Order: sequence, then C-alpha cells, then structure tokens
Amino acid sequence: MGFVYEAKREKLEEKLTLGEGRKKTPVAILGATGSVGQRMVDILARHPWFEIVQLAASEKSVGKTYEESVTWLLPTPIPEVVRRMIVTPPEKQSSARIAFSALDASVAGPIETEWANQGVTVVTNTKSHRMDPDVPLLIPEVNPDHLALARTQNFPNGGMIIANPNCVTIGLCIGLKPLFDAFSVDKVHVTTYQATSGAGFPGVPSLSILDNVIPYISGEEEKVEKEPLKIFSTLQNGLLSLPSLTISASCVRVPVIEGHLESISFSTSKQVSLEEVKNAFLNFKPAVSFMGLPLAPKRPIHFLERIDAPQPRLHKMAENGMSVCVGGLRPCPLFSYKFFLLSHNTIRGAAGGSVLIGEYLLKQGKSQFF
Amino acid sequence: MGFVYEAKREKLEEKLTLGEGRKKTPVAILGATGSVGQRMVDILARHPWFEIVQLAASEKSVGKTYEESVTWLLPTPIPEVVRRMIVTPPEKQSSARIAFSALDASVAGPIETEWANQGVTVVTNTKSHRMDPDVPLLIPEVNPDHLALARTQNFPNGGMIIANPNCVTIGLCIGLKPLFDAFSVDKVHVTTYQATSGAGFPGVPSLSILDNVIPYISGEEEKVEKEPLKIFSTLQNGLLSLPSLTISASCVRVPVIEGHLESISFSTSKQVSLEEVKNAFLNFKPAVSFMGLPLAPKRPIHFLERIDAPQPRLHKMAENGMSVCVGGLRPCPLFSYKFFLLSHNTIRGAAGGSVLIGEYLLKQGKSQFF
Amino acid sequence: MGFVYEAKREKLEEKLTLGEGRKKTPVAILGATGSVGQRMVDILARHPWFEIVQLAASEKSVGKTYEESVTWLLPTPIPEVVRRMIVTPPEKQSSARIAFSALDASVAGPIETEWANQGVTVVTNTKSHRMDPDVPLLIPEVNPDHLALARTQNFPNGGMIIANPNCVTIGLCIGLKPLFDAFSVDKVHVTTYQATSGAGFPGVPSLSILDNVIPYISGEEEKVEKEPLKIFSTLQNGLLSLPSLTISASCVRVPVIEGHLESISFSTSKQVSLEEVKNAFLNFKPAVSFMGLPLAPKRPIHFLERIDAPQPRLHKMAENGMSVCVGGLRPCPLFSYKFFLLSHNTIRGAAGGSVLIGEYLLKQGKSQFF
Amino acid sequence: MGFVYEAKREKLEEKLTLGEGRKKTPVAILGATGSVGQRMVDILARHPWFEIVQLAASEKSVGKTYEESVTWLLPTPIPEVVRRMIVTPPEKQSSARIAFSALDASVAGPIETEWANQGVTVVTNTKSHRMDPDVPLLIPEVNPDHLALARTQNFPNGGMIIANPNCVTIGLCIGLKPLFDAFSVDKVHVTTYQATSGAGFPGVPSLSILDNVIPYISGEEEKVEKEPLKIFSTLQNGLLSLPSLTISASCVRVPVIEGHLESISFSTSKQVSLEEVKNAFLNFKPAVSFMGLPLAPKRPIHFLERIDAPQPRLHKMAENGMSVCVGGLRPCPLFSYKFFLLSHNTIRGAAGGSVLIGEYLLKQGKSQFF
Repeated sequence: MGFVYEAKREKLEEKLTLGEGRKKTPVAILGATGSVGQRMVDILARHPWFEIVQLAASEKSVGKTYEESVTWLLPTPIPEVVRRMIVTPPEKQSSARIAFSALDASVAGPIETEWANQGVTVVTNTKSHRMDPDVPLLIPEVNPDHLALARTQNFPNGGMIIANPNCVTIGLCIGLKPLFDAFSVDKVHVTTYQATSGAGFPGVPSLSILDNVIPYISGEEEKVEKEPLKIFSTLQNGLLSLPSLTISASCVRVPVIEGHLESISFSTSKQVSLEEVKNAFLNFKPAVSFMGLPLAPKRPIHFLERIDAPQPRLHKMAENGMSVCVGGLRPCPLFSYKFFLLSHNTIRGAAGGSVLIGEYLLKQGKSQFF
Repeated sequence: MGFVYEAKREKLEEKLTLGEGRKKTPVAILGATGSVGQRMVDILARHPWFEIVQLAASEKSVGKTYEESVTWLLPTPIPEVVRRMIVTPPEKQSSARIAFSALDASVAGPIETEWANQGVTVVTNTKSHRMDPDVPLLIPEVNPDHLALARTQNFPNGGMIIANPNCVTIGLCIGLKPLFDAFSVDKVHVTTYQATSGAGFPGVPSLSILDNVIPYISGEEEKVEKEPLKIFSTLQNGLLSLPSLTISASCVRVPVIEGHLESISFSTSKQVSLEEVKNAFLNFKPAVSFMGLPLAPKRPIHFLERIDAPQPRLHKMAENGMSVCVGGLRPCPLFSYKFFLLSHNTIRGAAGGSVLIGEYLLKQGKSQFF
Repeated sequence: MGFVYEAKREKLEEKLTLGEGRKKTPVAILGATGSVGQRMVDILARHPWFEIVQLAASEKSVGKTYEESVTWLLPTPIPEVVRRMIVTPPEKQSSARIAFSALDASVAGPIETEWANQGVTVVTNTKSHRMDPDVPLLIPEVNPDHLALARTQNFPNGGMIIANPNCVTIGLCIGLKPLFDAFSVDKVHVTTYQATSGAGFPGVPSLSILDNVIPYISGEEEKVEKEPLKIFSTLQNGLLSLPSLTISASCVRVPVIEGHLESISFSTSKQVSLEEVKNAFLNFKPAVSFMGLPLAPKRPIHFLERIDAPQPRLHKMAENGMSVCVGGLRPCPLFSYKFFLLSHNTIRGAAGGSVLIGEYLLKQGKSQFF
Repeated sequence: MGFVYEAKREKLEEKLTLGEGRKKTPVAILGATGSVGQRMVDILARHPWFEIVQLAASEKSVGKTYEESVTWLLPTPIPEVVRRMIVTPPEKQSSARIAFSALDASVAGPIETEWANQGVTVVTNTKSHRMDPDVPLLIPEVNPDHLALARTQNFPNGGMIIANPNCVTIGLCIGLKPLFDAFSVDKVHVTTYQATSGAGFPGVPSLSILDNVIPYISGEEEKVEKEPLKIFSTLQNGLLSLPSLTISASCVRVPVIEGHLESISFSTSKQVSLEEVKNAFLNFKPAVSFMGLPLAPKRPIHFLERIDAPQPRLHKMAENGMSVCVGGLRPCPLFSYKFFLLSHNTIRGAAGGSVLIGEYLLKQGKSQFF
C-alpha cells in the first residue's frame, strides 16, 4: 500500500507485457467468483505472460458478466479486461492452455480431471488431487523437482494436474525449507492464527468471529500434518519416499481478514545454534531458475528483527504478498527453537502460489508442456 | 448473558449479605481504576462477606470521586456504593483487613510490603512478589496447601502477602491439575490467544490490534513457563521442591475483549487413554473446603463436547467467569494429547481469582488471620 | 454481565414461577433456530408466565433435537428444558395459545395467518403483516391502545396477529414517545449504526464487515421512515389517522455484535428548551398497566450523563436489554435538538419486545384473549 | 492492494525524480513519528519534488534514529532514506523550505509560527492556526484562490502558514464542491463513521472500540460545522465573506482502521433533479492548474454505482487514497438529497492533503514563494 505515483503507473504496466511479438498464454480461471478466484483474476488480469480467456463459476453466475456475478472483495477495482466477460460453466469452452482452479472442493475433482483429459495443464488450489501419488504437490521454491512426477500421469495431449498445497502448509514449508536442508528437521509443532478469508466467501459469519476466536477448522489439522511430508519427500525413480518428520498442528480462526500467522516449534536431528538458524533464514535464496518469474519474490523469506513481528496487517504484503515473514526466533524448552511465521493466505497461500507454479512451468518446461 | 428477571433481582442481593448480625470484612482495592481494579470493584461491591472501605489509585485520581476518576469499561453500571467514594493514594488510610492489589507492576512491590507491615493481608494480582520464596502463588483449587508458606513471612500483626498468578498461568494450572494428579504430566507446550483486556487500560491501541494479531507480550512467556512450576511444587518443611515438568509458552495478543484461549499439548510420564484424560476433566471437583465460598465454581473445569468449543465470546462467563472451559481433546502426534482451554482473564485470571483467595483465607484461617 | 452469586440464583428462578397453582400459558416459537429465535428461547425458557411447548424451524432442522439443529450464539448455555425438544415444521402441532414468530420474511406471512386461523395469538417479529391495516404495530409503552385494532381482524376462535416493529423503529419510537407527547415532534432525521446480529445468522459475512462499515441494508430505510407513522397514529373508530411527522433514515451496518445506535435530530412544532427535552426523557414512565410485567423495564428510557454515552458494548444490557439509552443531547443547527439513542436489537428490538407484547396481552386482555 | 510486478517497480521510481538537473525542494516533517507523520514520511520519502531533510518529534524521540523512535504502523516498510535519520526537536535545524506539520495541537501553534518567522512555508495539519483570519484553510481543488490570503501574513523572508482542514471537513467539502458551485447548497446534515487512525497513536484504546462505536469525539462537531464555512467563503479585497450555509454534524468513532464514511443530507436553494446532482459529481474535474501535480487525483470524486458503496475497506485507496468516493445518492424526505461519502482520513484528510498543498504552492507560486 505504499504510495505509488499514479500518473506513471500505466507506463509501467505497458512494459510488463511480453515483448518480441510473443503471444501471451491463454488461461482459464475455474471458480473465478470466490475469494481465491478474485485474487487470481486480480493477478492474472495484469500478468505479463498470461491472458484470461475464460472465467468459470457455479450455475448461478453462468451467463452473467463477471461484474454482475461477483461480490468483489478487494480494495482495487475489478480489472477492466474481465469486467464484462461472460461467466461460463466450469467445463472447457475456450482455448485455455492452463486452468487455474479455485473450485469448491466438493465438485473440483472430476472437473479438473476432465480439463486435463483435454490436454490442459491444471493448477489446482483445492484439496481434490493433492494426495494423488502422481500429482506433484508443488511449492516452486521448495520441491521444484517434484514436477517430474507429472510425467507419470496418463492424460492425453500433454494434459496434467499440478496441486498447490493448503495455505498453512505453504507458509510452513517455505519457512522450514532452509532449516530442513541444513539441519534435518524431524519434529514440528505448529499452532495457527488463520484469517477468515481462508474460508472463502461468504465463509465465516461475522456473528461467529467478532470479538472471538474459533478453535476448529474442518479438516485443516490433518492437511497440515500430512501435506508437508509429501512436499519434503525425496523423488527417486518416479516414487516419493517420505522424510523422517512428524508434525502436530492445531488450527484456529481469528478475526483477521488476510494473513495466516503460525507459531512454530521445531527440533533438528543434529545440534544447531540460534545464530545458525537465523543465518539459514537470512541466506535462503531461490534457485537461479526463478530469476525473471514475475511473481517470484527476491527473498522468499523475510527475517524481521522487530520484536513484535511478524504481524498480519503490517507484513502480509511483503513482496506483493509472495514472501513469508519470520520473526521471534528464540530457544524452545521442549524443541530446538521456536519462531513465528506469517504468509498471505490468499496470495502466497493460494492464488499467487498457483500462478507462480504456472510461471515456473512456462519457463522450465514450455518446450514439453506447451 | 442470560435473561434475569430484574424485578426480583434486588431481593436476591439483599439475601447475599451475611446474616446473623456478623459484620463484613473491610477491604481495600489498590489500583481500583484499572481494568482489573474495575472488575474487583464490580465483584466486591456486591460481595456477601466483604465491604469496600478504601479505593486507591494513582495521583491523578486521588481526591476525586471514583465515578469521576474511572473510565468505566464494564457493561453493568458502576456500583452505587462506590460511585461517590473518594479515591485515596495507595497508602493505607482505612480499617481494611485485606488489600486486593491490582497496582501497576512498576510500583506495586514496596506499597504491598508496606500494607503487610501494617498487619494487613495483601492479595496481589501483580508480578511483584510472585516468585518470592515465602509468598504462596495460590490457586485455591490447585495448591491450597501452599498457604502454609505464608507462615514463614515476617510481617508484624499477622500481615502477609499472597500472590495470584498470571492470567494465563491460572487457566493452564486449573486445566492441568486433574491431569497432573492422575498421570504425572511432565511436558506442556502452550500457545495463547490473549484478550486485550489483559494489557489493562488504555493498554493495546486499537490501531495495533484491529484486523491483526501481535506475537509478542512483554515478559509473558517467561511467567507462563516458570509460575506453574512453583504452583505444582511440593511443600515440605516450609520448602517448595519443584516438579519434573517442562513448559514451553508462545504468547500472542488477539482482537478479543475478554477470555484467553490456550492451545495446549501435554505428555504424561505413564501411558494414558483419551478416555481417561476426558474422565479426569469430567470428574474434577474442588475439595470440600470450597463449599460455600461465594465465588468458587461448582465445577472449576467445564468439559465441552461441541466440536468448535471453547470460544471466548460464548464460554468465558461459565459460572460467572470462574470456571475454565476445555474442549477439542485429541491425540497429539508429538505429545500425548492436545486440547483447547479458555479462561476469563480479568475474572478467573485476575479479580475473581484474587477475591476467591480472600474468601478461602476467610473461611480457612479466619481465626488466625482476622 | 454483572457478577451474580451463582449459588443463590437457583432460588431466584424458583420464585419466578407463577404461584397460586395457576398454569403457565403454552407458547410456540416459530423460527426458533435463528438469531432472534434463540433470544426468544433464552427468554421464554425461564419465563414465569409462559411455557415453551413447540419449537418450529425450517426443513433441515425438523425431526432433530433443538440442540442438534441450532448453532447456539448466546454466551449462556442452551436452556435445559429445550435442549432435547424435537424441532417441528412451522405448522401448528401443539396446544400453544401464543405463537412468537421469528420466521424468515419470505415464508412468514401465510404461516402466521394459518396459526391465527386456528385461534392462536400470533406475535410476529417479521415484516409480513406489519403494515396490514387491521394489525396493531405494537410497542406496549408507546401505543398500547392500538391493540384494539386487532378486534377488527376476522380470525375464528379469537385468533389474532400482533406485529412487533422493526428493530430500529422500536428504539426510535420509544425515544421519541415522551417528546412526541409533550412537544409534537414533526421532523426526525435518523442515521444508524446497526449491529450484525440484526441480519440474522449466518447473515453478514466476516469478510464484508471486519475493518469496515456498509452503508446499505436492504429495505431498512423504508421501514424506519414508514413504521413510526403507523405507530404514532391516532386510533379512532377503528381507523388510524397518520400524524404530521416526516422521517428521513440512513441505515448503515457496523462491526458490532449487538446494539443499534441511532443518531437522531428532531424538530418540534412549538419551541422547547433543552432542559424541557431532558426532563421529558427523565420523567418518562410506563403506564400503570405495565406494573408487574416480567420484562417491562422500570424506566424504558435511561438518560445517561456520561459525555460519550450511549455505547453498544457498555449500555445495551440496560434493564436486561429492555431499556433504550439516550445521551449526547445538544442543540442541532438544522433541527431543534439532536441526541444518540441505543437499543438492544435482538432483545428490546426483537425477541424481548415480542415477549413483552405477549405479557401485556396476557395481563390486559386475558379474559377475552385466553 | 493491486498486484504490482515488483521487478519493474524500481525503474518506475527512478523516473519519478525531477529531471533536468533541478534540485528537489528540502522539507521538514514536524511530528514525524505519529500516525499522520508516518503517512507524511511514506509519501515524501519517494516524492519526485521534495526531499526530507529534517524529521522532528517530541523529546523522547530526539537523538534517536527514526527507526528506533517510531512504532511503524503502515503495511509497507519504513523508507530506507529516513530509517537512520536522527530525529530532531521541533525547532528549525535544517535548510528546509517547507515544513509539513503534524504536531500535537497542544504545542503546534507557537512552533509553527517560529518556523514561519524563519521564512519557511508551513503547511499545518493541526487545528492551531486554521481559523486565523489571514491563514488560508486550503483544499486545492475547492478554494485555491484563498491562497492569496497568505499575502496578508506578516512573516519575514516569505514565511507563511497554510492550514490543511480537519479530516472530515476535507472529504465533506470536496463532495459538496460541485453541488455548491452548481446549486447553491444551503443546508448540510452530516453524520460520521470515523476510523480510529483519526485519533492518532496510541489514540483509541482497543478496549474502548472493539465490538463498539463511540458517539463522541472531542471538538470534532464544532470543527465540521465551522471549517466548511471558511472554505466556501468568498475572498474579496483580502477579506472572507461567509456563505449562506448551515451545517449540523454528529461525529462517531467506529472500529475501522482507515477511511471516514460520512452520511450526508443537503438542501439546495433552487430545485434540482437527482440526475443533475449525479452529473455534477460525475463531471467534477480539477482546474487545469492541477495537471501534473504528483498527488492530484485525476478525478477528485469517484461516483460509485454499486448499491452498497462506498465502503472504507474497499474504496479508501481510490487514486492512492487521494479521491473521495460517493454513493447511495437518493432523495431525502427532509432535505433535497442524501448520499454517502468516503475519504481516506490519513491520506486525503491529512498527510496527502498537506503534501498536495505543498505541490500546488510549488507549481503555482514558486517564483514568489521559493
């Protein structure tokens, strides 16, 4: 929300288009009217590499313009390019080469499979295919090699499904990545402070959460305890072998709009100093292959010295909401160390994370995938 | 709040006075204008055994009526009996036999000592004397025998100091008490969701906490990691011996007015089933010595079956805010079990807890103390 | 939320039952699982004159126990007497003599008519019949004589429909009543700060209202501009003649759980001093016929001197939520005076108001009605 | 906030510097650590025309780096250029040619006068000099000609004082400007929903405003009723003559971080259609003299069609928070029409408004002023 001098902004955006006469990749957004879908629209409508060619949503929106069908929740206006686009049913009705899915979990599975069957690369934000053995559960900065798993999928015409993990999982795994690599983390205890936007729209009723916190989110603790094991698995000969890692998660909803805070304690199998942990956070840089991806943060982890950091309202937008923020590193009497971690749940943890997967695919594998 | 048929309420309150011509015990409230002090006023002004004879506060209030000097925060009116009482400096200026102290920690210590030197029983809610070796850190339902420690204090005329623990500590220790007694708990990992009233008034600025959570409360984690060790100590020959217990605490402020939620994982030294833990909670009853204490809850722990319980807004007022509520009991992959616990931070965790200590003293030891 | 000494409370409630061997009047609650329905349950379950014999709700609750079908939102437990009562469809299936309706406005009309056709007195909280010419739009302290309108209804066996006004209207009309009587108010400009509980449950999504206010409530301004005209009408020869009164209403939702605040400017047709207005508020007392009604507040209007009063969180529970609070009286440069008014929207403005109508009927007209 | 592709952002900001070898104007910020001062820092640190050369604050900050002395409240980081700047006392200690003042009203007056005496142009955000007869109370888009008043000030070396109005006044006057010009508005009734950031930091305690609204802001109604009269005055021969306009204001604090909503009813002296009012809003454009001012919004008024607009959380950042948003235009039974208006209280209503005055001065009058 820093002050941008508006008059010059348009020129900036013109520049973001791909030069050299190359065309943008056509994409579809499935579940485009929900809270994650809106974030996808907001990101993709001005994306230099992608062009939205289809917006799909549930029956009550079909046939209306996007503007008519959405209860827009973001503090920036609905992008002009989608405002009058007609919402379609969730079946393929366009030339889209990538489908970003934020469909409701109750219907997502078969629809996503159908898109893949038509040769489309599906990047899904829902839980439907996350634990399928041949579906990469991908965080580009954490387990990019898992992309190879997708080669074992049997969709025709290069169709494939890639899954974006749960929003708590993503922040947790990015934060653990440098520790896991350097010190073999084997125990993780995580307790969450989750924003209401994580439950979609209308989602959490105001009567339930004003002046309150709710210590229950259906299915959430199971996801956070299992998904990181798949993500930190070693891929060999097309098979994932699980790491020696145990996670305990306790998940709680708080009256915050955006930004999941996590209180994390962890143990390493070998002894390590607080300084070494801090340096692992500070020195964590994405692989060279991330250079030039529009959404890839320069530093996926921001280590904050301020004693009361990170805080959702102040730090969620670090690098446009694509970095996680870490603070409060201190010894834990029961584990090695504890710290707090914040990640933007609808950007890094959902829409932005999915689009970053799309960018990574486009850069890494465009010869084979597109 | 439940609907009370007002017309009959006055008669109720008449009845609460001690019968049989016996006089009420005169008490002072030190720090009477703060958020905990207000709760003390609210409770003591209608208490059947106590009579407020002195309200003390800081310099800017001295000489004014209580009504003029206080920014009243409670949803019930300022009690009539104190409305026009003149606020005094925090020195003894009355016949008070008990002083309930909610003074600011920066000034409390010497003032409380001076009251004790004048033969008064000081029940303090501040941290000043909590870790003094001869001061009982008392939760009546948890370690009533520690009261004997006070006999080793050297104040003249029966003066003494009893400390009420930190607001998180109190809820935690009441919740652990039946488990500790039955299964020898040796590890506790607690993460908190603390209401802003815990920081007093004006306390947490609204700009800091609206749409936000703050992962830092000065000095809080240290208190929660240490105080329970003193409380669960064994008292023998006037000395406390520490239990074999390690606690890790992570403390976070949330935008809730009242009610601290705690996410607790614990390990027991011997194996125990979930059913046994549940029964320990369900069967926990206070000792017979608590019968008839006006503030003592019938069940100090309410075990709630509702899957999303306990919640601050719904459950903080269990038994007038004097019971803690427990829910979400489930196995923990890293410890034995985990659960959520809620306690009212300004009632059970502060003002109500202090007055309950006063009641217990009055009943148990009135011959020697008063 | 004042501290009540629990041990004595039971005795109080025993007393609230009608003595003299008289039976309680059997009542039904239609729409018992919604936010207003829950308040009705909370009030009626312990009411001295009424006994809940039927709880009706929509299809998805029918056949379940009340406890299973409700998302309980109140800070006191579900009353024991209804916990295992089986929820019925909204048709009459009991001996109820009064039906308190909090049905959804989309279905309420015909169902309420059908109950009246079976000889039942329907007290409805929905807008369905409010503007019917023969239905009293009743606030017992304001226009009790309008009850006579109901005699012109043509339901068999003494059936009738009485309507409780909109929640903003009720507070407004109680506040205006002494001014209207004394000074002939002819212009009223009201702007509201309405709690989210007014929209029912799930109602307002948290994503819409956290850190926000919403300047639109469907149909609300129309109701607030029209209903008071009916309420302040003169009833002569079975016909209502409208007062010379113009109202402008602007309605806004704010992130508050309970308690509607209204900013009110008004003009009187004759000149009047601020002191006279204040005295009109201070001296307002209900008619003698309200003596002994369990829910009738002793003072329907509390005039508060505190400069920043009334406030929802502090003052909504005045006389158990049945009184409105008035403050900030000052001259208005464009009208005569302006002031702020607060009323509890789900108690005085809905459930409590409806039950008070039932009590008034029972006392006034029991010979003809029951 | 809209998604900005970070990698390209730096290039944008390089461009914003003044070209042609011209130097930036050195400026001081007085009261730089408060909530408005932080906004000034955020805006000026990246401003193309201004360079911060002095940051002044109260005694407890003096001598520390800005980073050490501030509790930073904005969601973007402290700008690098000020992070290690040493905070000075509020006296002039630099080459600053403009001083932007956000000092506390209790000390601002004499300090600002002293800066003007040293030949500096003071743009003050505090109320101290607002009603001085020779001080322009300036909203550049509303009364730019009032700048001429400053010529009658008697400061040496071209020193002068220009006042930025109260945050509610600014939004109100921008919204009324096209109506005033076209239809001679003579009565305005405004009721506010004011964000807590308007009270500074620490400002409103969370215990006062969570789940609450507060119908009192000290001195606010007087300012809003009087300041617009000065702003809409006609300047002739160095004297202001008041317009025929009466305003009634009722001011209320709500639990919103930023963005003041105003509910406005107004009357025009001649009859006017709703369509004409709407067109007046739609066609309102700033004078040509605003072209090229970095902070000047292209459209100072955004007329929103969405039925529930404007809302603080969604619309406060219109044109970087420099535009006001208008919605809900409808007939008023007591005045001509009513509508809702939103303006960002710490940007348009304070820091941004002040800097815009500085820009306007620089462009219009730089020959005589600098």
